[in-house]
Amino acid sequence: MSTSTVQLAAAIALWAGLIGSALSAETASAPAFTAEIANAIANQKIALDTVWVLITAFLVFFMNTGFGMLESGLCRAKNTVNILAKNFIVFAISSLAFWVVGWGLMFGDGNGFLGFKGLWFVAGLDNSPATGGEYSGVYSAISWTTVPVWAKFFFQLVFAGTAATIVSGAVAERIKFHSFMLFSFILVALMYPLTGHWIWGGGWLQKLGMWDFAGSTVVHSCGGWAALAGILLLGSRLGKYRADGSAKPIFGHNMTTAALGVFILWLGWFGFNPGSTMAAAPFDIARIVVTTNSAAAAASLSATITAWLILGKPDLSMTLNGCLAGLVAITAPCAFVGIASSVIIGLGAGILVVLAVLFFDKIRVDDPVGALSVHLVNGIFGTLALGLFAQEVIMPGTTGNGLFFGGGWKLLKAQAFGVLAVGAFTFVLALVFWAIIKAFFGLRVSRVEEIQGLDVGEHGMEAYPDFQGFLTK
Amino acid sequence: MSTSTVQLAAAIALWAGLIGSALSAETASAPAFTAEIANAIANQKIALDTVWVLITAFLVFFMNTGFGMLESGLCRAKNTVNILAKNFIVFAISSLAFWVVGWGLMFGDGNGFLGFKGLWFVAGLDNSPATGGEYSGVYSAISWTTVPVWAKFFFQLVFAGTAATIVSGAVAERIKFHSFMLFSFILVALMYPLTGHWIWGGGWLQKLGMWDFAGSTVVHSCGGWAALAGILLLGSRLGKYRADGSAKPIFGHNMTTAALGVFILWLGWFGFNPGSTMAAAPFDIARIVVTTNSAAAAASLSATITAWLILGKPDLSMTLNGCLAGLVAITAPCAFVGIASSVIIGLGAGILVVLAVLFFDKIRVDDPVGALSVHLVNGIFGTLALGLFAQEVIMPGTTGNGLFFGGGWKLLKAQAFGVLAVGAFTFVLALVFWAIIKAFFGLRVSRVEEIQGLDVGEHGMEAYPDFQGFLTK
Amino acid sequence: MSTSTVQLAAAIALWAGLIGSALSAETASAPAFTAEIANAIANQKIALDTVWVLITAFLVFFMNTGFGMLESGLCRAKNTVNILAKNFIVFAISSLAFWVVGWGLMFGDGNGFLGFKGLWFVAGLDNSPATGGEYSGVYSAISWTTVPVWAKFFFQLVFAGTAATIVSGAVAERIKFHSFMLFSFILVALMYPLTGHWIWGGGWLQKLGMWDFAGSTVVHSCGGWAALAGILLLGSRLGKYRADGSAKPIFGHNMTTAALGVFILWLGWFGFNPGSTMAAAPFDIARIVVTTNSAAAAASLSATITAWLILGKPDLSMTLNGCLAGLVAITAPCAFVGIASSVIIGLGAGILVVLAVLFFDKIRVDDPVGALSVHLVNGIFGTLALGLFAQEVIMPGTTGNGLFFGGGWKLLKAQAFGVLAVGAFTFVLALVFWAIIKAFFGLRVSRVEEIQGLDVGEHGMEAYPDFQGFLTK
Repeated sequence: MSTSTVQLAAAIALWAGLIGSALSAETASAPAFTAEIANAIANQKIALDTVWVLITAFLVFFMNTGFGMLESGLCRAKNTVNILAKNFIVFAISSLAFWVVGWGLMFGDGNGFLGFKGLWFVAGLDNSPATGGEYSGVYSAISWTTVPVWAKFFFQLVFAGTAATIVSGAVAERIKFHSFMLFSFILVALMYPLTGHWIWGGGWLQKLGMWDFAGSTVVHSCGGWAALAGILLLGSRLGKYRADGSAKPIFGHNMTTAALGVFILWLGWFGFNPGSTMAAAPFDIARIVVTTNSAAAAASLSATITAWLILGKPDLSMTLNGCLAGLVAITAPCAFVGIASSVIIGLGAGILVVLAVLFFDKIRVDDPVGALSVHLVNGIFGTLALGLFAQEVIMPGTTGNGLFFGGGWKLLKAQAFGVLAVGAFTFVLALVFWAIIKAFFGLRVSRVEEIQGLDVGEHGMEAYPDFQGFLTK
Repeated sequence: MSTSTVQLAAAIALWAGLIGSALSAETASAPAFTAEIANAIANQKIALDTVWVLITAFLVFFMNTGFGMLESGLCRAKNTVNILAKNFIVFAISSLAFWVVGWGLMFGDGNGFLGFKGLWFVAGLDNSPATGGEYSGVYSAISWTTVPVWAKFFFQLVFAGTAATIVSGAVAERIKFHSFMLFSFILVALMYPLTGHWIWGGGWLQKLGMWDFAGSTVVHSCGGWAALAGILLLGSRLGKYRADGSAKPIFGHNMTTAALGVFILWLGWFGFNPGSTMAAAPFDIARIVVTTNSAAAAASLSATITAWLILGKPDLSMTLNGCLAGLVAITAPCAFVGIASSVIIGLGAGILVVLAVLFFDKIRVDDPVGALSVHLVNGIFGTLALGLFAQEVIMPGTTGNGLFFGGGWKLLKAQAFGVLAVGAFTFVLALVFWAIIKAFFGLRVSRVEEIQGLDVGEHGMEAYPDFQGFLTK
Repeated sequence: MSTSTVQLAAAIALWAGLIGSALSAETASAPAFTAEIANAIANQKIALDTVWVLITAFLVFFMNTGFGMLESGLCRAKNTVNILAKNFIVFAISSLAFWVVGWGLMFGDGNGFLGFKGLWFVAGLDNSPATGGEYSGVYSAISWTTVPVWAKFFFQLVFAGTAATIVSGAVAERIKFHSFMLFSFILVALMYPLTGHWIWGGGWLQKLGMWDFAGSTVVHSCGGWAALAGILLLGSRLGKYRADGSAKPIFGHNMTTAALGVFILWLGWFGFNPGSTMAAAPFDIARIVVTTNSAAAAASLSATITAWLILGKPDLSMTLNGCLAGLVAITAPCAFVGIASSVIIGLGAGILVVLAVLFFDKIRVDDPVGALSVHLVNGIFGTLALGLFAQEVIMPGTTGNGLFFGGGWKLLKAQAFGVLAVGAFTFVLALVFWAIIKAFFGLRVSRVEEIQGLDVGEHGMEAYPDFQGFLTK
């Protein structure tokens, strides 16, 4: 704030210049003046787009808070510190990993499989916010947005961080802290950027005609597959399954913070989806806000009612996961579908998430917070829904029409292909990395530590030391 | 983010065009070029206004979180899940109800009493963001703001949702979940839009000269009257009144989340009030931020001191409700009054809310969270305060001067008339709907369920299962 | 929202006028038209800058929530209501104190030591957002930013509020509520504005060549010195030190809300630092977002690892304070250093904060939440780091190069001088004011009240009355 002189100069240069030109317009050459105006208008577009991209990125950053509250709330009090620590440190790790090499792998020029130019430390040549023919640099795949490179980086970073956070809930209450930290680094430095390159970095799936506006596949099902691999190698929590094989419910210890978390996530998604325009395009962002919100609302209701019908009561954790399911499902198609379609997609997501939770319980895949049902299942569903509900008229020249709007199977096939490719690659690679970490560092805490709680075992502290009784469960 | 080609085209069209024109300006016709500039500047205004409207709408959306935390914190642990579920589902219901028909009733062209053109699904003709003579469509009452129709819709939706949320706190700890859901739908689909139409939709109160900038009456006292009707039909909570008729304090179970809630609400009001400009008008939004904040600050202090004097201690729940009272009271006049006036209004609101809480306790109207004292009493007070403190010089051509600034009784009378009309209509209609719901579905949970807590009874779960003892109260 | 006519007029004036001019351009005089365009573009810059300043101010405001959650979470359950009340009321007090006289002392024209023109109620002459030679008014030191005066005021107010909040954590669990209120008023009305004037208000340190972009010294170490003085006069909490002089750990009662608080603070810093441009300067704000985030991430990691090495476990409270330490340290240099430098500064801050916490424990300075280690120690470190890592190329014409980039000792000396001057002045003055308050009102609650908890003693209520056992500690 003490930069008065400099700021001042910058601030007044624009219109002082313009006014000067105006006053001397009769003598000055007209082309010089009009170029100056064009430049001023272009600069203001850059400024506004940057403000939009940064603020929506802040909202996506805030989703870390939401996931931290949701995941810790849905687990037991004795593991709270551990879950909070994981959710906190994972974004710190992501920030460094994505800066060191993740960004370069994802958005660097390269081939259809990976980026390799400007690979390290976001240090490649780049004249952002120049776009189109004006752009010269090594991050061409993301040169369509008129914002400075650090705005691009930060927006993409918070997305990468989200993918890593998804894993943390699924492996909660039994994973070793340092093993989780290691896997998070690998996920954000290497795995996420690769599949991300395929779809958003000019890679082979993008060329194939697959669309994923804000990341149902790039972020959510990617994180979901990595989490599934982790669960399979970790096994279920002690006491989760009875001798007869049936699942025993393990209740969350703090539904207040769980609900707080989902409220924050719903808010954060207003950054996630409309921000993915990476431009303050008024019609697009306003419409995307409404499709996003409508899907979340419809899914909250349909999950509540589905749980009510199947379980006999409107289970709050199902309402919350229903909301998230709707948000994940609308993430890929949010820009390409109408409001009514978004409501239908939401209704489907809400039903699907309840069935998925029951299904994973049945096949003994122990996912404490329902991360697979939300992010993996509905990440896939949303990506496919784009192939069903997309409408050419909404964003002409992009997806074309989906199956339900007369576009035939073509788009749906590309979507399905993308789902399978990202799934197979991420799941297998995640299995390999989890296995390596398991071999060298171990994945699971000891039986005693798991019973006592990871807070004491991993961190030497309790979350609520002034309250009695919570260590008894 | 994979829409590179399209985004690119859109992004560079503007100034590529301009620069092109500039370079060929000597040969191109001057009028064509200047029209292009005018158009570019107009488009940037639309983009900036849309960004402002959406971001402030996000802040208002976040108020759902604030209300959820405040209301659950001020109630007992055994009813926490139920309150959270109500606060969560109510916005989902509002989102669909306002889309289906609420928006059309409120902003559709029609008569002084209701809108009936473009009634269903926001599907009427509309060429937003065109304004004034350029506008052609059926939502003319809100055609003054230069943003796309979906931005208008979402901003208005989050306001409608707020009105519904106000009810939830007042009827907490005893209402049946599905009956509350039903009433919320009716409120947002039908009742709120009607009185909203009168004041913001070009209806008869607007024509009469009543002013309510951001909704002290449209949102807050409307929700308050609906809540009062509900309380009267529900009755007070078991154990709230002693045999001698005196009120027994029932303490909130979590003052941390209650305080968190009010912090979030204070933040959310920076969307509520300055966002109601629905345009990035720099002088107005900056001033409204400060009037809003000053009233909240003054009311927090005056409520704290009033409670200190009357009750002997600075009661935190009074500080929190004091802050909200100041925010509700400044909501109507925020744009039309000076900073000093906003401080005075805040001081009054803080005193008023403490007296109102004691008064409602005395007349045995059991409002667990003080929603009536905050939203109804101060919604009325704020609407009238506009008639006292408004100054012509602040927004020339709007309210004119209020009583204290030489404008006489005219404005105050119109304000009072609006308060009475909205109050009578909403209260009676709410009574009717609550009574119908009571007859068909019942309003109140069983005595056993109320003692045991609504969490187990309505939802089959507890909020804090790992902690001992909270079911004993 | 009912201001249709007025808003309408304002909204369409701009381009209606432009289009009109365009259509008649052949007959209209060219200079008139170009002046109109220049004016339109200038107005849009003002509007966008104001939106940016206000939204980042909202984020900084939200930091009150973060501090409230962090401080109450890190203290004992029996003092929760008191801490929340302090954190809440302190911003209310700041809002009034800074309006009454704080702003005038800090930004009013005057001499190198204080401002005295336009001293009271922000009522001095001011034609903001005019800048440079166009500006005429009494707040020239802040006339470099093109936003209305109320936007300037609100942005500066939330910074002043932060300084006051820092104190609250350090003196927690033993200070009398009304004595804290009094000191907060004095700090924001008088002390903070004076040293603020020296650095941001055109005062003597600014002229000396000291730089502090967003307030490592102006806000954080200032609050830290005031807190240290308070701790010295208050003494340590009962039971904090054993008979042998060694420190006994007193654990926080709610690590969930502590973590929530730091997540919110991290978010809030995206307002604090990039907002301090007070202009939507796209390259600067994007870069500052990334330096801020990188320092926070690096410090979170280095504090975690340092604690792991020294204490044997990755202590979550150290991770959280590490993050804050990184944020405080990058606050002064955020605009003037590169990304790699910000990572190094963050790594240093994370190590420093752990050592500082252990040091203060050792010298028996009892700071319940680590406020001194975070704000004082790292406020100083960050201010000095600017003198080491600043690079001329990043913001030409401002700081020049720091020691590590070939600029020699000059900048570092100015920074060190500023640190000492602000420290000596604030610490001595704070001692005096704390001593006066102690003499007239007392500082510390009674021994019985401290053991029982300040919630009951000061406020007559408990934070978690439905839970058993928390009064036993």
